[in-house]
Amino acid sequence: MFITFEGIDGSGKSTQSRLLAGHLEAAGRQVVLTREPGGSPGAEEIRKLLVEGATDRWSAETEILLFTAARRDHLEKRILPALQDGQIVISDRFADSTRVYQGATRGERRAMVDSLHAQMIGTEPDLTLIIDMDPDAALERGLARGSGEDRFEEFGAEFQHRLRAGFLALAEEEPARCMIINGNRPADEVGAEVQALVLSRLA
Amino acid sequence: MFITFEGIDGSGKSTQSRLLAGHLEAAGRQVVLTREPGGSPGAEEIRKLLVEGATDRWSAETEILLFTAARRDHLEKRILPALQDGQIVISDRFADSTRVYQGATRGERRAMVDSLHAQMIGTEPDLTLIIDMDPDAALERGLARGSGEDRFEEFGAEFQHRLRAGFLALAEEEPARCMIINGNRPADEVGAEVQALVLSRLA
Repeated sequence: MFITFEGIDGSGKSTQSRLLAGHLEAAGRQVVLTREPGGSPGAEEIRKLLVEGATDRWSAETEILLFTAARRDHLEKRILPALQDGQIVISDRFADSTRVYQGATRGERRAMVDSLHAQMIGTEPDLTLIIDMDPDAALERGLARGSGEDRFEEFGAEFQHRLRAGFLALAEEEPARCMIINGNRPADEVGAEVQALVLSRLA
Repeated sequence: MFITFEGIDGSGKSTQSRLLAGHLEAAGRQVVLTREPGGSPGAEEIRKLLVEGATDRWSAETEILLFTAARRDHLEKRILPALQDGQIVISDRFADSTRVYQGATRGERRAMVDSLHAQMIGTEPDLTLIIDMDPDAALERGLARGSGEDRFEEFGAEFQHRLRAGFLALAEEEPARCMIINGNRPADEVGAEVQALVLSRLA
């Protein structure tokens, strides 16, 4: 089973990915917890090019190519081998982030994103949990981390609002795969809902 | 006018690019001399990921995506602005290298390379000079440089022979754009032929 978490920066995806991995491991499952961009040594190097530096460092088109290159490496080296080995893979972001960040909010490039995905990636998650959260609160949380990886946060508050709308639209497009989780709650409360959802899917 | 040099590693492309740029500048032309992978600050960072490290660092598919990302940045930031400004652009390698290195010699991936090129790059050179040279002599010269950028040379001698055959086949495919230059001669002799060819095209 391949599970992804999606949502805007600062929405709590990483926390929820870790909580779910812990729950599943405690229940005796073999879990690979990973993230994008990155997740394999090569893709982590591409990550540095994407999440650091000035907002105008890359055009949306070059970004789409770099994210797809990182995803291809992650898929080949980490995700597919783990799935073939019967493990549960949980990824903090995957292709939906490219659909929304580059495909919906930086001009009309969704067709380009979809075409590259179909040609070079193909794989879709079995379940995608979209953590929905107030964009202003999420942006504040994201920037407060001071991770040095805030190139996308630097696009500003209006960009975060468009991202949120993009994720909600995506969930409507693919209701069988995508579930929206209310992230405006304490992490343990969100985590309990996520856990219940995943366990019912696994059963 | 957009001119590219192509050929196997060690065939003398960089020397010939510089010689031609010098000749054209001496004749009063404005010239941008550039190279791939690289040629713009972003693309030069992607270059490091491609030309250093172990041969199995990336699959051919991930390589195609990284080369296309670097080329898109190079095109946007350097090649197209210079051409629009009326300058002559000379690039040491361009899309033909991806067609041959990833498209023809690492499995049958030419359709993938062509599709990505059509979608994300589009631009073709006006003239491509393919420096043809004995692969064993070229490989020896390439490795002797000790540049630390020898990931592709490390694929070995048989790979260099397949590359040469790939470039020759490409020249047959596109006779109006591609000219084969015999590189098994002293650099100044090769340079004189190149200069004559380019001047006749410009006239």
